[in-house]
Amino acid sequence: MKTLVFLADGFEEVEALTVVDYLRRAGIEVDTVSITNDNKVKGSHKITVIADKKIEELNDVSLYDAVIIPGGMPGSERLRDNHFVIDIVKKMNEAGKLVAAICAGPIVLAKAGVIKGKQVTSYPGFENELKDGIYVEKPVVRDKNIITSRGPALAVDFAIEIIKYLAGEEKAQKLKKDILYQYLKANN
Amino acid sequence: MKTLVFLADGFEEVEALTVVDYLRRAGIEVDTVSITNDNKVKGSHKITVIADKKIEELNDVSLYDAVIIPGGMPGSERLRDNHFVIDIVKKMNEAGKLVAAICAGPIVLAKAGVIKGKQVTSYPGFENELKDGIYVEKPVVRDKNIITSRGPALAVDFAIEIIKYLAGEEKAQKLKKDILYQYLKANN
Repeated sequence: MKTLVFLADGFEEVEALTVVDYLRRAGIEVDTVSITNDNKVKGSHKITVIADKKIEELNDVSLYDAVIIPGGMPGSERLRDNHFVIDIVKKMNEAGKLVAAICAGPIVLAKAGVIKGKQVTSYPGFENELKDGIYVEKPVVRDKNIITSRGPALAVDFAIEIIKYLAGEEKAQKLKKDILYQYLKANN
Repeated sequence: MKTLVFLADGFEEVEALTVVDYLRRAGIEVDTVSITNDNKVKGSHKITVIADKKIEELNDVSLYDAVIIPGGMPGSERLRDNHFVIDIVKKMNEAGKLVAAICAGPIVLAKAGVIKGKQVTSYPGFENELKDGIYVEKPVVRDKNIITSRGPALAVDFAIEIIKYLAGEEKAQKLKKDILYQYLKANN
């Protein structure tokens, strides 16, 4: 399994990097992809990461099993307004691949026209941009090949849902055990 | 308030970067500090970040209110075996500053001799290295100026405890609201 996570300046670090970390723990390959011609990408809380690839290096997206869109401002808007990103999201959806987004990220899915008639969620306040979908207020929502989630604290559950989808329940349970997920729940 | 987070190759990305992101959201300054002469630091799940500073640039640690040690292997061992890191942890503790560590990170605190008689926790399996302290199996443990926690899934609670300590309950509550912490808890 091979996935790509788009990064634009102003991406939300916890949302993007929790997914990268946990998917790799579950044995799923992840390419982080900068949408500029610079591998350096600066998050919305001033954490700079070096992306694995630049978007111009994505020759064959059919190699990927999923595209993942983190939130953060203005990162999500930059992804929404990038026509290469939108084309890739469309192509992945048409091929029946997993398309996932968290927080403000679902605005990219809306722009690509992939949420029509699908249950989706987002960070509160983006409901209007997601009118094509059926808005649901749940921490994580899956409708066929579309997974959406709401915000930074839910990045763990978003990652777990993606792992279940791509690698199965057993890998997801193993991850939860390794990251001490049960203590998180016991804590409150 | 100003804090420093040490980063060594092999640091656990979720543990380190969740703290950086959330502290900055709460208005607390954070310097990420590489322990080599290179600002680039590669996490245990192959995420490379560019640290704000190199350890050689830390001229006056009395400017900081807290030192924070993420987990991850071999990152935690590299921090434990770095005498500059150990000296700084000792100095911060002697000055009554906050010393915090998560996952395998508490082995650094043990080496610096700052956990004697203090309640501490860690990722399961490091109990032997923490014999100087009083080992407690809780998600997050605070004993005076020492805060410890257990693993990646608990990074959110670790960050919240640090924010409470440095910036107060109100800022911690504001952060929890902004990151949608309540949905995380409602989910299980």
